[in-house]
Amino acid sequence: MAGVTAQLKPTTDGDWRDNPARVRAEIRRGAYDGHTAGLAPGHVQGNVAILPADWADEFLRFCLQNPKPCPVLAVGRPGSPALPALGADLDIRTDVPRYRVFRDGALVATPTDIRDFWRDDLIAFALGCSFSFEQALLDAGLGIRHIEHDTTVPMYVTAIDTAPTERFHGKLVVSMRPFRPADVIRAVQITSRFPSVHGAPVHLGLPEAIGIADLSKPSFGDPVEIEPGELPVFWACGVTPQVVAEAAKPPLFISHYPGRMLVCDPLNAAQAAF
Amino acid sequence: MAGVTAQLKPTTDGDWRDNPARVRAEIRRGAYDGHTAGLAPGHVQGNVAILPADWADEFLRFCLQNPKPCPVLAVGRPGSPALPALGADLDIRTDVPRYRVFRDGALVATPTDIRDFWRDDLIAFALGCSFSFEQALLDAGLGIRHIEHDTTVPMYVTAIDTAPTERFHGKLVVSMRPFRPADVIRAVQITSRFPSVHGAPVHLGLPEAIGIADLSKPSFGDPVEIEPGELPVFWACGVTPQVVAEAAKPPLFISHYPGRMLVCDPLNAAQAAF
Repeated sequence: MAGVTAQLKPTTDGDWRDNPARVRAEIRRGAYDGHTAGLAPGHVQGNVAILPADWADEFLRFCLQNPKPCPVLAVGRPGSPALPALGADLDIRTDVPRYRVFRDGALVATPTDIRDFWRDDLIAFALGCSFSFEQALLDAGLGIRHIEHDTTVPMYVTAIDTAPTERFHGKLVVSMRPFRPADVIRAVQITSRFPSVHGAPVHLGLPEAIGIADLSKPSFGDPVEIEPGELPVFWACGVTPQVVAEAAKPPLFISHYPGRMLVCDPLNAAQAAF
Repeated sequence: MAGVTAQLKPTTDGDWRDNPARVRAEIRRGAYDGHTAGLAPGHVQGNVAILPADWADEFLRFCLQNPKPCPVLAVGRPGSPALPALGADLDIRTDVPRYRVFRDGALVATPTDIRDFWRDDLIAFALGCSFSFEQALLDAGLGIRHIEHDTTVPMYVTAIDTAPTERFHGKLVVSMRPFRPADVIRAVQITSRFPSVHGAPVHLGLPEAIGIADLSKPSFGDPVEIEPGELPVFWACGVTPQVVAEAAKPPLFISHYPGRMLVCDPLNAAQAAF
């Protein structure tokens, strides 16, 4: 989630950083393991979750019940590292700069590829990420405070329960961006067009109403100042399914390392529903 | 603006009240001069403004410069009482239940028809009205406080200047409806689809930022309570052009009497832009 400033300033040298397939190729050959902010500007980046099949079907149900925090971009076939809708050559085992590997809920490794962990029963998910709607906001001329300050968006665990399945349950995590009221209205309009990348806000203006006691103390990320005349606006956050999946303690769960996302071929602008 | 409750409860007896052309016919023959709330449910109602041609062209420019308070539904030809886009038989001189007639800015009459005032140089305007977007909000399950209480929506003169022309200028008037944050977001989404009837809100949550010192003291209409956990949401109001046109003191200005609107054939639902 951190440091998306660079993502929104397209590079001009026409090098590998501009092209999602070339970005994945560099990552795949081990030449790059850093943040993906700023890479392949204009293209979708995804949150990654990988689970054994006997957990993955339930996780998919969880995502479909909670589409705002868990917008499913693509689901792989059991045992297949391919997600062809997001890139013809995409190999989920090698194409993310760095991973987190959990066994029974405990972090056991943060490798740069997961071929050694791969199994024939694993199913890969790519979920939408706020980078896409942030680009739409910036394109419309709205300023995004944490991007201006080059910090990580503040995220808060709310008092709102997600819709649970048998083993997956937990509180909704939201990200917050402050805007003046006229821009709040624009932000609702703009992000409503992008349901596959979290869509419209879930809340605004009254943090205590969703169990946020102190905006200056985010659960994750960095605080941002809310200036006089601004309102906090809250979007469902892709950290929600990560936290929920970790807490369910499946025997194996693999996700992207924070800020190291899956760089995909589809354009952000193509995600607009209308 | 008052008492739109009935508008939103369609009558069931299939009588004249359900049909916009029959409503206009009853008004035209002098059989009805009351509020139009509840008449021809589902159909557009319009604010009316009638001006001499040498003022009307400038008024039209004013409206086009200020589309949120002044959404133009139809403009007549000089001297013509017809607005065929809003009803094939429509006669603006007879089809509004009651009028206000201003000479040089002073109210001189409140007749039930204006044939005696009509001139070959008058141009009629019908402007969108909040009844249409309120129906869309109610259809989506949102509660509207002033409708629940059967009072007139509270309206406030703001500190926001409209975009002036040579002779038309003044402050933006807004109407206010309180909602809980999740419904604020829905209300922005729903009303954004209806730009021809004021469209998205212009402000929310911070009344003092637009010069409203005390929500309990509206400039027009009745106050409504804002309950804990609710935010005030402000829409541009069709009273704006009425106030601006009166203040410009044209030699002749005719408008509908408050709450006695022009009942039109087009459906509210057909006003959706997307």
